Amino acid sequence: MYSVGVRGHVMIAHSFRGELFGPAQRLHGATYLVDVEFRSATLAESGVIVDIGRATAALERVLEALHYRNLDELPELARHNTTTEFLARLIFDRVAARIAAGELGPGAEQVRTLKVTLHESHVAWAAYEGELS
Amino acid sequence: MYSVGVRGHVMIAHSFRGELFGPAQRLHGATYLVDVEFRSATLAESGVIVDIGRATAALERVLEALHYRNLDELPELARHNTTTEFLARLIFDRVAARIAAGELGPGAEQVRTLKVTLHESHVAWAAYEGELS
Amino acid sequence: MYSVGVRGHVMIAHSFRGELFGPAQRLHGATYLVDVEFRSATLAESGVIVDIGRATAALERVLEALHYRNLDELPELARHNTTTEFLARLIFDRVAARIAAGELGPGAEQVRTLKVTLHESHVAWAAYEGELS
Amino acid sequence: MYSVGVRGHVMIAHSFRGELFGPAQRLHGATYLVDVEFRSATLAESGVIVDIGRATAALERVLEALHYRNLDELPELARHNTTTEFLARLIFDRVAARIAAGELGPGAEQVRTLKVTLHESHVAWAAYEGELS
Amino acid sequence: MYSVGVRGHVMIAHSFRGELFGPAQRLHGATYLVDVEFRSATLAESGVIVDIGRATAALERVLEALHYRNLDELPELARHNTTTEFLARLIFDRVAARIAAGELGPGAEQVRTLKVTLHESHVAWAAYEGELS
Amino acid sequence: MYSVGVRGHVMIAHSFRGELFGPAQRLHGATYLVDVEFRSATLAESGVIVDIGRATAALERVLEALHYRNLDELPELARHNTTTEFLARLIFDRVAARIAAGELGPGAEQVRTLKVTLHESHVAWAAYEGELS
Repeated sequence: MYSVGVRGHVMIAHSFRGELFGPAQRLHGATYLVDVEFRSATLAESGVIVDIGRATAALERVLEALHYRNLDELPELARHNTTTEFLARLIFDRVAARIAAGELGPGAEQVRTLKVTLHESHVAWAAYEGELS
Repeated sequence: MYSVGVRGHVMIAHSFRGELFGPAQRLHGATYLVDVEFRSATLAESGVIVDIGRATAALERVLEALHYRNLDELPELARHNTTTEFLARLIFDRVAARIAAGELGPGAEQVRTLKVTLHESHVAWAAYEGELS
Repeated sequence: MYSVGVRGHVMIAHSFRGELFGPAQRLHGATYLVDVEFRSATLAESGVIVDIGRATAALERVLEALHYRNLDELPELARHNTTTEFLARLIFDRVAARIAAGELGPGAEQVRTLKVTLHESHVAWAAYEGELS
Repeated sequence: MYSVGVRGHVMIAHSFRGELFGPAQRLHGATYLVDVEFRSATLAESGVIVDIGRATAALERVLEALHYRNLDELPELARHNTTTEFLARLIFDRVAARIAAGELGPGAEQVRTLKVTLHESHVAWAAYEGELS
Repeated sequence: MYSVGVRGHVMIAHSFRGELFGPAQRLHGATYLVDVEFRSATLAESGVIVDIGRATAALERVLEALHYRNLDELPELARHNTTTEFLARLIFDRVAARIAAGELGPGAEQVRTLKVTLHESHVAWAAYEGELS
Repeated sequence: MYSVGVRGHVMIAHSFRGELFGPAQRLHGATYLVDVEFRSATLAESGVIVDIGRATAALERVLEALHYRNLDELPELARHNTTTEFLARLIFDRVAARIAAGELGPGAEQVRTLKVTLHESHVAWAAYEGELS
């Protein structure tokens, strides 16, 4: 199995609901380092799964919708606890949609699984991985 | 599949038995950076697998039993070569026992697999991963 | 010249005023990895500048006042652009005050200069360093 | 499942063929940080999968054949686009051959899968993993 | 003293002349992670030394002239051993020229010193720092 | 001012004397990542301060005397608290002696200052820097 990965980052504000979260119920924020890995059993004739430049650009476009935002105020997110796990899944779905839309080029249809990892600090991270349908 | 991970560290002394180990047969030591990943197919309603604060606290309690110790002198470890692989398994078992005991909260019963990685330097590491019973 | 350093982190929300900041004028947030270095020409008889445990504890107390906060709502910060440079200086002043108050122990009077570095992502950081009076 | 990993690095020149690669069609180069992970369901009686020293030495020998080379001029590579994915597979095959030849010692026959990851920068990497036959 | 830093990277081919360099006399290559630090005794009223976005953009433009190049073929570099130290100085001079040309904005005239660090691997780096005239 | 740096590591056991050290009074151990920086106002004609290969080899020889050792049992260290600060100075002195002995080659006489940094974990480090006589 081959994989290729790229890193970006995003800086957001948000708050959590639920006593579980203690002081994180207050409005605060995070820098997430966002790693996306594309996995495939095969390589295109060019020798790549997806072009690293195109993959980076697609990730940047996904992150741009969140960058410098208060997630509590985004209509599609306001009902959710935007935990690191939740955001990993959200970015997974949005990158997957861009692959399906052909944005990563014709070779990207060989991508079988994606993994999205968000590092919220040097001592904590979360991820979501799954198959592409 | 979701995952969430936390990092701690522990500083220990030990020695190894067997010619294979060359100079590491002498009493020496290590700092291990210890990463624990909790994996689950689902998230609790709160949006998390386990709370990062609780996960970090549980890891700290596991590491405290080893921190600043000579592992050669701990009765339960003295018969073993406490290699990085061995210690990854040991910490896996001890974190798993704390999950089973309910220390990570009611949501933690959804954790299906654990992975424990120990970085012994910037150029070497070992890990153990397995399912929780 | 000797130095000793410790790392903590803090997760905050804030916004900036001024066209210079573009989209960062919106409410957003950051994780800062915070490194504090203590420098001294001499070591105490114990062989340390300051004890790493005490230094870490003092840094944690400084960061706790900011952790999980919206800096725009803290009275003493509301008039300022809490840029990474500004926050490095703020934390410098607060760690310096704790040294002056004797919190880092009797040996800490030999500390001559402090450097505080805040990493806001894997590709950007700021710092403030200066002499202690 | 246990795993143990070691890191090395290699500095090479190469160029790519295909419009997809844009400016990377020009002769350029890279430092690859190369991580090799050995996985096994069991540990040898010594407590290791493979000795970290032997694993590092085997990786160094594999990398030495590429280090400080222009890959476009190596007969066995000249027909290929030596992308990061391609090189991860190449190094996988060469480490696997050394395991099969007994270079990593008698315990290494328990290694079931290998994973080779090449970091080409702080923001991009590729990997190949597979079972040993 | 305040400082602010940004990171970029560049992938180049080159070779060295002189027996000192051993196998690095062959055409090979490197990824350099490039850190630029801007230092100033004061902050602009906005709270920054230079805007991180503008600093990153200026660094990217400097690196673009080198990215995906064989440095042996660039007329201005062909007579030189483009060692890591040499390239740190080259990038220093080019960033300094962009500051002098006003590219980093009106606040940048307060920058007193620059430091440019190039990481050629996880175990080696070089830097050049100096005052701006 | 130019600088060039190399990284090595060393794994040791030791204990500390003095109540200040709390549980670190017990025999324990550490992995130190050891960074040595060589600084010079000028470059040799070759374009380097010192050759990275030679610098790495000299550091390895210095570290070999400590690697896999219990520092409490080394006659020259037994009377000391081998704190991270102390060890940074010790390695500084030993690298300086190797420069003076000509081990880093004829160009190394231009090295004016050395800095030695020891990372004892991902959250703590110490350093010693000074001029060469």
